[in-house]
Amino acid sequence: ARGKKAPITLIRCDGFICERESVDDGNITFRGAATEQVMLVWNSRPRRVLILTKKGPDLLPSLMEAARHLVTVEGMAVMVEPAVHAAVADEAGVALETFASPATLHEVVDLVVCLGGDGLILHVSTLFRGPVPPVLSFNLGSLGFLTPFDFKDFERNMGNVFRGQCLLSLRMRLTCSVLRAGVVVKEFDVLNEVVVDRGASPYLSNLDCFCDGKLITTVQADGIIMSTPTGSTAYSMSAGGSMVHPSVPAILFTPICPHSLSFRPIVFPDAARLRIDVAADSRSTAWASFDGKYRQQLRRGDGLMVQMSMFPVPTVNAEDDTSDWFASLDRAFNFNSRAKQKGL
Amino acid sequence: ARGKKAPITLIRCDGFICERESVDDGNITFRGAATEQVMLVWNSRPRRVLILTKKGPDLLPSLMEAARHLVTVEGMAVMVEPAVHAAVADEAGVALETFASPATLHEVVDLVVCLGGDGLILHVSTLFRGPVPPVLSFNLGSLGFLTPFDFKDFERNMGNVFRGQCLLSLRMRLTCSVLRAGVVVKEFDVLNEVVVDRGASPYLSNLDCFCDGKLITTVQADGIIMSTPTGSTAYSMSAGGSMVHPSVPAILFTPICPHSLSFRPIVFPDAARLRIDVAADSRSTAWASFDGKYRQQLRRGDGLMVQMSMFPVPTVNAEDDTSDWFASLDRAFNFNSRAKQKGL
Amino acid sequence: ARGKKAPITLIRCDGFICERESVDDGNITFRGAATEQVMLVWNSRPRRVLILTKKGPDLLPSLMEAARHLVTVEGMAVMVEPAVHAAVADEAGVALETFASPATLHEVVDLVVCLGGDGLILHVSTLFRGPVPPVLSFNLGSLGFLTPFDFKDFERNMGNVFRGQCLLSLRMRLTCSVLRAGVVVKEFDVLNEVVVDRGASPYLSNLDCFCDGKLITTVQADGIIMSTPTGSTAYSMSAGGSMVHPSVPAILFTPICPHSLSFRPIVFPDAARLRIDVAADSRSTAWASFDGKYRQQLRRGDGLMVQMSMFPVPTVNAEDDTSDWFASLDRAFNFNSRAKQKGL
Amino acid sequence: ARGKKAPITLIRCDGFICERESVDDGNITFRGAATEQVMLVWNSRPRRVLILTKKGPDLLPSLMEAARHLVTVEGMAVMVEPAVHAAVADEAGVALETFASPATLHEVVDLVVCLGGDGLILHVSTLFRGPVPPVLSFNLGSLGFLTPFDFKDFERNMGNVFRGQCLLSLRMRLTCSVLRAGVVVKEFDVLNEVVVDRGASPYLSNLDCFCDGKLITTVQADGIIMSTPTGSTAYSMSAGGSMVHPSVPAILFTPICPHSLSFRPIVFPDAARLRIDVAADSRSTAWASFDGKYRQQLRRGDGLMVQMSMFPVPTVNAEDDTSDWFASLDRAFNFNSRAKQKGL
Repeated sequence: ARGKKAPITLIRCDGFICERESVDDGNITFRGAATEQVMLVWNSRPRRVLILTKKGPDLLPSLMEAARHLVTVEGMAVMVEPAVHAAVADEAGVALETFASPATLHEVVDLVVCLGGDGLILHVSTLFRGPVPPVLSFNLGSLGFLTPFDFKDFERNMGNVFRGQCLLSLRMRLTCSVLRAGVVVKEFDVLNEVVVDRGASPYLSNLDCFCDGKLITTVQADGIIMSTPTGSTAYSMSAGGSMVHPSVPAILFTPICPHSLSFRPIVFPDAARLRIDVAADSRSTAWASFDGKYRQQLRRGDGLMVQMSMFPVPTVNAEDDTSDWFASLDRAFNFNSRAKQKGL
Repeated sequence: ARGKKAPITLIRCDGFICERESVDDGNITFRGAATEQVMLVWNSRPRRVLILTKKGPDLLPSLMEAARHLVTVEGMAVMVEPAVHAAVADEAGVALETFASPATLHEVVDLVVCLGGDGLILHVSTLFRGPVPPVLSFNLGSLGFLTPFDFKDFERNMGNVFRGQCLLSLRMRLTCSVLRAGVVVKEFDVLNEVVVDRGASPYLSNLDCFCDGKLITTVQADGIIMSTPTGSTAYSMSAGGSMVHPSVPAILFTPICPHSLSFRPIVFPDAARLRIDVAADSRSTAWASFDGKYRQQLRRGDGLMVQMSMFPVPTVNAEDDTSDWFASLDRAFNFNSRAKQKGL
Repeated sequence: ARGKKAPITLIRCDGFICERESVDDGNITFRGAATEQVMLVWNSRPRRVLILTKKGPDLLPSLMEAARHLVTVEGMAVMVEPAVHAAVADEAGVALETFASPATLHEVVDLVVCLGGDGLILHVSTLFRGPVPPVLSFNLGSLGFLTPFDFKDFERNMGNVFRGQCLLSLRMRLTCSVLRAGVVVKEFDVLNEVVVDRGASPYLSNLDCFCDGKLITTVQADGIIMSTPTGSTAYSMSAGGSMVHPSVPAILFTPICPHSLSFRPIVFPDAARLRIDVAADSRSTAWASFDGKYRQQLRRGDGLMVQMSMFPVPTVNAEDDTSDWFASLDRAFNFNSRAKQKGL
Repeated sequence: ARGKKAPITLIRCDGFICERESVDDGNITFRGAATEQVMLVWNSRPRRVLILTKKGPDLLPSLMEAARHLVTVEGMAVMVEPAVHAAVADEAGVALETFASPATLHEVVDLVVCLGGDGLILHVSTLFRGPVPPVLSFNLGSLGFLTPFDFKDFERNMGNVFRGQCLLSLRMRLTCSVLRAGVVVKEFDVLNEVVVDRGASPYLSNLDCFCDGKLITTVQADGIIMSTPTGSTAYSMSAGGSMVHPSVPAILFTPICPHSLSFRPIVFPDAARLRIDVAADSRSTAWASFDGKYRQQLRRGDGLMVQMSMFPVPTVNAEDDTSDWFASLDRAFNFNSRAKQKGL
């Protein structure tokens, strides 16, 4: 009989770590599908909840209602932001904690509860630059992409999270570093996208784009969007990018009005290390904006490094990642609407 | 001091297996980036090479040249397809093996060498429906997407593969099952894409689309493309899909001429189990085609299940997945061409 | 003083006629904007109305109601199709005319009234292959693109048309001729679009495309749509074509899934004479379909000539072409919906 | 016999003039296809040529060579711009005229000759805000969209224009008026496009869009492009607009990154009077730019009126509008390239 095949070893490296996998029969298989949805199990009872709400007094009554339930019924310690604490601590009827700096919040907060819209999840991302506790988002009327829970069912939903099992989507963030003369001068984490554009200049400097240190193209366009799957249904979609399911480990690279017909939106793996350089002799500077805010000029010679953060924003799903996502698409875009499909 | 957070356990299930991950400090991180590129190390010397070439006599001299080198210099056993064996065994000057059925080929072939174009890789995928040995693809003039090696450097390239380390892209295949009355009546594996369309009918039956058993939408369109990343630069791209890097673990779901403006191309995770049903009362039947061949009618009431195969097609990269891919894009679409970018 | 410029003559030819325009001061101006919307004034009172309705008995009561009003109140002669005449002449209560052949209908019918959906306008186009009387379209519930009038206001609307002034959109039709060995073997007029596609064949023959006798490109695609502005919001839009206002004198040329990234939808002037040839040595045949019907095979060597018909379908506008069109877009696509715009 | 149909009158109004057309047999036909290509015939010999070239000394030798030929062989008076006159009048060897102000240039210049690229045609459009003489554009190496003539054949081409018949494309310009408190404060004519965008602001004010005085939609997008057919292959194309043949009398309305999936590029008739209003209570101001230059802020409450100019830029075609245009598309986008079409 013919001899068997040579045994092999496969080595996977993702920039952080390398793993060796011995394959004795020489048959190569996938190691297991990638997925960013996990089930959360509390090994002991959680103790402290941070409640966030959007600025202004409108939602403070709802916040106090939620806090009272969590303290008196669930036995939790409840923490709120300093400005909220100043406004409501006296009248809340239960003890409310607050904090001086968000730096160590992640060490003591078991769960974050958001009352408001998608903007609040971006605020969570800003408060927790390192590890982020699970985030439970309630909508109070206006339905966003990331707020699957209805505040009317607050008590039941909280009970399910504390006592049942719940599914988390581990939402990738992108760590964006502005490089000047090779040194990082600013760093931002984004949950949706970072955009490099020409600002008010009629010209876009030619932007050199690198992946893992290799020049992949020089872009002439109004700008470039680097987006997470979470951001794929936001600005990237306006620019023609695909809808990317939140469990796909990927970074979207979507040009804005490219001057070349051959430049289509690209989907990179999550491990890709992207860099955009403004050439030293370029016609103009460029601008970067992070989750639609924090606008930052990129001077000639500057670079912007973009790569996945080790620390996801884990959001609690109402049902599961697929069902929640399509429900959001339906709400926002009439995705599944028959009436619409009749139209054309 | 405030107490520490509750420790948690995360459970990841991908349909095949579940893994538990204990997180004692409660800090959720990514487990390691997903990547479909691995490094291949031979634990012992490989012994048998299968050489494939496209049909017809044109490339037989190159095949014999390659075979002689592999036998005499590298000491390999060389295998060819039966028709090729019949044509050249007598004049090859070295012993050539062949096979009666491809069923057990994967147990004895250490490496596949292709001389020809992209179509030959599709042929590899057909020969090896289970595990596939690493595939080394040489172009002989016409440059395809999957043939990064130049036949002029055959000897050097072979030496590198046998003695050096080489990078493999584990290219996902989709297993497609035609269901009739709930029973699988046909099964195909595709490396590029499966398409469901209306065939010659002027009407498309409404197609019900499911992900993991949940109805996500009813499509009215000329058709639907379900594509691997490898296929993302083929038909899916013509229909408006994004370019997806070969290391992204994802399935593309790209509508052809959708009748709804809100239906954009979707990128699903690799673990997604997709199903397309032709309604029992639908206006007409539908057609499925697999890698552009094997056209198959889907009757009213039939379904088509699509999910990733456990068995990738591992192709040897000339440099690495990113460099090889952008070189292909440049060749095929002038992706990086400055002249083109000046145009607009 | 410097002398004046040389006087010039400009000659405009559109394939049908040439006009000379003397420009004595040498200053070139536009002769007047193109528009396909005109105001209709009856020089004497119209006398005969043809009422059409979709097949089946459902709308016959409405048809009889309309007929009685037109005969008794407006003093019109009313004509219906033969099958309708057979079904309702006895019970209508007023005299109804009918016809044996549609060939000379255009000589006696002053106005066509449609009760039903967009499909009925396509039927008008089939009945009147030459000149078409003004068409007044009533919707009875389901709102189409071409049915701006509400049947509830039938009497008032009819009065306005007979006694007031009304605006007509002159909707272009395309005359499509199938050429075999240089001879026209079939001819169709379309109001929406003609499509050339690959039918059930997995391959598309290369199609040579000509404008005014000059080869402009060889298309590799799933197919080609040649559409009127009326058809621009139908199939052409699914394939990525722009929305074209009904008063633009233009022919849309929209590829379906083109295999080249540089092939974008093209808008030609109304005078363009387009031709698609299936090469004599092409890999397969092609199929043409006309307004989504009348599927016709194009053999190797066949050609398809497409040019504007001299005879428009004049549809009565409820308000004016722009208002009616945007109202249709809003109904069909939520074009103006704020809720939708919030989504992204 | 049944009586004949009622005779009718059709009235066409385009905002400038109304025409009555009596239709005695009641049969409605098109009046003749719209076309923006005309044949130019000189009624008497032209006498004065204005030669333009791009700034800088590089092309002055070519300009002098052209001038000497026109004066000595063709017997023309030759005019150049003041700065060029100052630089070369002494060494030209023939008499060169110049001018103090461009205001009355159109009364004395029979023909404009451009030596350079597309930018020079934009300069012609700026010099001649009213009537524009025919423009003959020579490329000197770099091939643009509007420079079909090769300078190597200068003498032959000039002879053809003076003694033969030549085809002119009457290229539409858009007159753009900035309105503040209902008063026009600035006016620009553009040959390519006018763009309204959000400038450096991260927010776009909601823009109210009107056609002929009617609100058609409120746009949420990065911006809006209003383009001529000439500009359809420039910025509008980057934003997803169709390629519009230069003889189509139309205005393109192309959104940049619209926030609604239902907002597709629109093609309006040339007679459309468009207006964009920045709401008085809008979140931010907007910016308009005209042919990529002359950036102008639009304050809250400002409006921008856009409509076709009565005065086209007549450019001399090398062959005819269709052939010249497809040759440009091929040069700029490899439109017709077989190699490209093979790629996908």
